[in-house]
Amino acid sequence: MTTTFEMTPVAIVEGCYPDKFGVPRQPGLAPSATARLILQPPFNNFDALRGLENFSHIWLTFVFHRNPTDWHPLVRPPRLGGNRKIGVFASRATHRPNRLGLSLVEIVTVERYPQPMIIIRGHDLVDGTPVLDIKPYLPWSDRVENAEAGFAPTPPLQCAVRYSEAAKLSLAAHPDGKTLTSLIHDVISQDPRPAYHQGNTQRRYGVRLRDVNVKFQEIEQNGERTLLVIAVDTALDSLNFK
Amino acid sequence: MTTTFEMTPVAIVEGCYPDKFGVPRQPGLAPSATARLILQPPFNNFDALRGLENFSHIWLTFVFHRNPTDWHPLVRPPRLGGNRKIGVFASRATHRPNRLGLSLVEIVTVERYPQPMIIIRGHDLVDGTPVLDIKPYLPWSDRVENAEAGFAPTPPLQCAVRYSEAAKLSLAAHPDGKTLTSLIHDVISQDPRPAYHQGNTQRRYGVRLRDVNVKFQEIEQNGERTLLVIAVDTALDSLNFK
Repeated sequence: MTTTFEMTPVAIVEGCYPDKFGVPRQPGLAPSATARLILQPPFNNFDALRGLENFSHIWLTFVFHRNPTDWHPLVRPPRLGGNRKIGVFASRATHRPNRLGLSLVEIVTVERYPQPMIIIRGHDLVDGTPVLDIKPYLPWSDRVENAEAGFAPTPPLQCAVRYSEAAKLSLAAHPDGKTLTSLIHDVISQDPRPAYHQGNTQRRYGVRLRDVNVKFQEIEQNGERTLLVIAVDTALDSLNFK
Repeated sequence: MTTTFEMTPVAIVEGCYPDKFGVPRQPGLAPSATARLILQPPFNNFDALRGLENFSHIWLTFVFHRNPTDWHPLVRPPRLGGNRKIGVFASRATHRPNRLGLSLVEIVTVERYPQPMIIIRGHDLVDGTPVLDIKPYLPWSDRVENAEAGFAPTPPLQCAVRYSEAAKLSLAAHPDGKTLTSLIHDVISQDPRPAYHQGNTQRRYGVRLRDVNVKFQEIEQNGERTLLVIAVDTALDSLNFK
């Protein structure tokens, strides 16, 4: 008989990614992405965060709650072009047993009012993500100097990003256009499309970020994969997170 | 209404620490500690580990299953001498909501027979620990170069360790005396006693490691805290892990 463990979220993410599509594949890949990590009852006691303001980074253990609960022993990481299989425990795939995620994020501030929360930056969490634990990052324990990392030894390559005149005008008119532009750059330069869509210059995509819908498309360029931001539209059904 | 999540262990630790007492407070502090991480049904499919042999380190998300399930917003880390309180989410305390632990360990080998397992080194897990997830360590994502770590910026200080003649004889006669000596050194030099016992040179302690019971005591020395290994006895009720 296997014992199981019941977990209750200690915090919920309020962030800039309304949908799974567009969420970076690791937290550090979108340094401009910010979120509120709001403690939930009965854990919403500011004492539980005392001293955290003296740390720069935290680990979040969370649930990929929008994923299905089934899993497969082998996965196809985007890093390998989506056509080579590796073991689920040799990957950070979101589709995995227990649906557990692990993210290292930067602390911006720790807030007491209106409710105990942590403002974080450089995250990869879809809005509404339930967080099961928060731990400080300890460099002397968590940093390995000569680690080998199999098929993923370096960060993924970034695409070039260009903007249409219409997109530039929308961003210039947006009340928070500067940070929004950084966020769009971070997300689009990671190429959120499935690996097998690379090279497809016909199809248009839409990704919701904060309160806008970003439309983009791959364009023909010599040598470098380039994504063009066609339009940045106000999305009435998107998040209002600033 | 809060949603909860039910978690099933994907692996169980068979290791060198039969008891909580003596387990290092972070994994890297006992580089000699080895363990078997045995996949459990229905996760015991060797495919799930494919490619892991090309990584050097893994993250383990696990449950402090021998801890009580209650928690307190404030904890007293041993690092602060046990008399200053900080928030539970600003600490790596084992006594916490959801009882979740996070350990970075080194892969020694990945084995297919007699059952799918990972041999790990430098761990801090009590025998029988249920592991909920295994993820590869990605240096470009998990390593922060300039992190600030509040009250715990550096590894804890180590004690000096000395050995009685009786302990030396026992270790020389042990079939695996060399690696056992390294393990004893790693564990005792961390001073496993509660912080408020420091300076007490009257009391003797026993810590079980693998198949032995290690008796030790603080001794008077000028300046440096020193622990004397008094005896290394075969413990009939201990683990048989080599």
